[in-house]
Amino acid sequence: MKVRAHCLPLYTGGPSIVVVNEDLAAELDLHPMDRVSVTNPQDPTKCIVAHLNFWYQTEPVLGLFNDTFEKLEIKEGDEVSILPVPKPHSVTHIRDKMNRQVLTEHQVFEIIEDLVANKLTDTEIAAFITSIYIQGSSLDEAYYLTKAIAETGDTFKFDTEIVADKHCSGSVPGNRTTPVVVSTIAALGIMIPKSSSRSITSPAGTADVMEVFCDVTFTKEQILEIVAKTNGCIIWGGGLKIAPADSQLIKVRKPLHADPEELLMSSILSKKYAMGATHVMLDIPLGLETRYRNIGEARLLERSMVQIADRLGMKAGVVITDGDEPIGSGIGPVLEAIDVLKVIKGDTDAPQDLRQKSLLVGGKLLELIGLDKFNGHSSGEDLMASVLDDGRAYDKFKQIIEAQGGDPGVTVKDLEEQLSDTTFDIIATEEGQLYDIQNPVCAKVARIAGAPLNKGCGIYLHKKYGAQITKGDVLATVYCGSPDKERRVKRVLKENKLFFVK
Amino acid sequence: MKVRAHCLPLYTGGPSIVVVNEDLAAELDLHPMDRVSVTNPQDPTKCIVAHLNFWYQTEPVLGLFNDTFEKLEIKEGDEVSILPVPKPHSVTHIRDKMNRQVLTEHQVFEIIEDLVANKLTDTEIAAFITSIYIQGSSLDEAYYLTKAIAETGDTFKFDTEIVADKHCSGSVPGNRTTPVVVSTIAALGIMIPKSSSRSITSPAGTADVMEVFCDVTFTKEQILEIVAKTNGCIIWGGGLKIAPADSQLIKVRKPLHADPEELLMSSILSKKYAMGATHVMLDIPLGLETRYRNIGEARLLERSMVQIADRLGMKAGVVITDGDEPIGSGIGPVLEAIDVLKVIKGDTDAPQDLRQKSLLVGGKLLELIGLDKFNGHSSGEDLMASVLDDGRAYDKFKQIIEAQGGDPGVTVKDLEEQLSDTTFDIIATEEGQLYDIQNPVCAKVARIAGAPLNKGCGIYLHKKYGAQITKGDVLATVYCGSPDKERRVKRVLKENKLFFVK
Repeated sequence: MKVRAHCLPLYTGGPSIVVVNEDLAAELDLHPMDRVSVTNPQDPTKCIVAHLNFWYQTEPVLGLFNDTFEKLEIKEGDEVSILPVPKPHSVTHIRDKMNRQVLTEHQVFEIIEDLVANKLTDTEIAAFITSIYIQGSSLDEAYYLTKAIAETGDTFKFDTEIVADKHCSGSVPGNRTTPVVVSTIAALGIMIPKSSSRSITSPAGTADVMEVFCDVTFTKEQILEIVAKTNGCIIWGGGLKIAPADSQLIKVRKPLHADPEELLMSSILSKKYAMGATHVMLDIPLGLETRYRNIGEARLLERSMVQIADRLGMKAGVVITDGDEPIGSGIGPVLEAIDVLKVIKGDTDAPQDLRQKSLLVGGKLLELIGLDKFNGHSSGEDLMASVLDDGRAYDKFKQIIEAQGGDPGVTVKDLEEQLSDTTFDIIATEEGQLYDIQNPVCAKVARIAGAPLNKGCGIYLHKKYGAQITKGDVLATVYCGSPDKERRVKRVLKENKLFFVK
Repeated sequence: MKVRAHCLPLYTGGPSIVVVNEDLAAELDLHPMDRVSVTNPQDPTKCIVAHLNFWYQTEPVLGLFNDTFEKLEIKEGDEVSILPVPKPHSVTHIRDKMNRQVLTEHQVFEIIEDLVANKLTDTEIAAFITSIYIQGSSLDEAYYLTKAIAETGDTFKFDTEIVADKHCSGSVPGNRTTPVVVSTIAALGIMIPKSSSRSITSPAGTADVMEVFCDVTFTKEQILEIVAKTNGCIIWGGGLKIAPADSQLIKVRKPLHADPEELLMSSILSKKYAMGATHVMLDIPLGLETRYRNIGEARLLERSMVQIADRLGMKAGVVITDGDEPIGSGIGPVLEAIDVLKVIKGDTDAPQDLRQKSLLVGGKLLELIGLDKFNGHSSGEDLMASVLDDGRAYDKFKQIIEAQGGDPGVTVKDLEEQLSDTTFDIIATEEGQLYDIQNPVCAKVARIAGAPLNKGCGIYLHKKYGAQITKGDVLATVYCGSPDKERRVKRVLKENKLFFVK
């Protein structure tokens, strides 16, 4: 049935929602929460599957939440087709898994395909995840799942023996090793096409930080060109469709804490497999506020990862790092970009923790690839350091910035000019040794200040773990998007302690 | 934080939704789909837990979907308090069940309590249901679950030895045995306080039909008064809070077809337990389009039901009936009320299938209670028939109507005057024997015609299974709420065959 569509100024950040009035629902024999498809008749490839809410209107009308409306590429008042959608066939495969059957490659693919097409409800996805959680997956199933998550999105295939990649399990503010690692490894002639995420719930993702230097949104063809020129790239994965099923699975998995290794590994490895990676290093920060808190958990992950990667024809390794404190001094896109540039250029005031961690993660990745390929350094870290110190990494970083449409001559001063003018300092009121910086409070302050949307906002930590503090010391500077945001940050700081001194 | 609330003309029919603009979300450190509580500061007992959507507004504002707004009993623009809600403790019990633990009575109660308080997400509920589906429940767990579903709502306790009740597993249009069974059994001096549902997806629920005769929405105190007077009642369970968790579980269970006997039985028995029942008869219609299709399924249900009922101190039985065809002639509230009144009065044109089925279901219930209590009839059906035929059931029905505030003198003619004037006939275009009436099409026609909201709408079947049909015969009459609805019904009848003749 055809009906005019209206855009409602609402979005869910998740499920697609269509609202209709009761007459239209009766005619289509639909009930609240039923599944419908809405298609742009001018371009039938623009089609979404959504869930039905109701709208108190006397006319038979249809409204689309803003995020759903945009996917259809229509204009306000355009005609769309709406149809009830039967339960997809893949729900029977989910029921098979509930019934203790081992799924075939085809069945797993159908489930993931329908997931990506937005045809499954949260309830169905939760049933699938809970079944995997309770019954586990065979290695075959985990392999099928990883492949399906990759292959239902964009995939890359490079004509070279080694394609490197890295991943971090997250939750550490400022932990921006990727630009350093990519520049250094690409400078060694190793291909490292890195797709990164934007922040969702943190003050900055790697893509947000890289965007301070250059574009990060490219088509597949453009990425192939960039990588052909420079051996590396740091782009936003969301600009492509890299493993699009993954974020949908995460949304359901996360609130359940139902993270069996098979699902975690298929989540990480699918993105690497989609990027054509052959060697992958996973950085697992351990800490009180990070995702993983002990070595045992990390080792279990490592075992699954190596096995599934092997089945996919990839080599994988894990490096366990310290996740108790923010890495680097700045939290927020521009502030983190400054840290990154200083480390790559080898500036004397570069944050040493960011440099050390980049050397460690990149070094382990080089060792996984095989140090013999780089005529004999004693360790991967040593090799990383030499490429950073002799300026090759900086040259490569400038090449990548240029290939991604940015200004390779950008200086720290240029970046500092992009910081917000609305600032205030956090002053020490106690004396002693700084022994803890609360990661979650640090992230919250940067976010409320305006990061990541307002790139020049965030928090700069003048003091880190172990520093001797005197009353009146400036502990940090907060860069705020507006006086109103400044007020809100101050309110948050009153209620939450950021620095602990003893 | 306090903020003014606006009512949006939308409703979900399920989850509660609150929308806020991005500034307000940042200040509360909230993300889309997060859980928040919204409280009416004038009356803190009016509090809902809802999920967050976002609203494109420059001002920090809060909007509530209409169904959520109404629960708070506030007026447009009133101030409300909004707070982030941490994950409830019962989620750890759901995780325990996922981790193969047997839950304690206290844990089950906490899960159901949070479910009723709307604190659990669909994802969490789906994980709980999937876990029960995969791992099963012990008899203890099923018993705890049933009790918790009952005890988190209103419960009744009558000071009498026998309290009868019945239930039907549904999907058969027109199957309105309840008023007949209740009147007959109450006339025998057996207490039978019946709570019924309104229709959600069918053209009429028992409460919708009974409302043609009298009120059906009462407080607990009023129901106790009615039952004290008449031994019986037929009220709308939704007017009270009878087992409110049940509908929330069904909403998640149904789309998954995850209906392990334990959950089905706790669903049915919790409502009976809440009504204080001691003897319960379950009618399971079998048919191609009903919920259960074979005797084996029905027998499994029966076994679970008897066991759990026993644990609850109740006696339960099952009667398996034919669900292939609609029961009675009318589908729609007034049309079904006419059928019921004719059967209870013993009119010569009363639909015999409705009478027979009422005798069967009521008879089995009487046999469960014990025929010896009614000085020796050869069967329960026989006893039912005698009470119907000698007018005692009709007298009791009139008493109940009067006690529920209706007119006990209402006639079939009075009811016929409430039927819609916009009618059309469905005429036979083939000759032969009528061998099938499609239940789903029949229900759809009645619903699109306007039932159950417009009580005078629906479909009246002049011919039933086995009838000899001649071309030009009137097969059915459709009563429509408006000429527009008539057009829509005709469109549906063009696309769907209702009567099959061979």
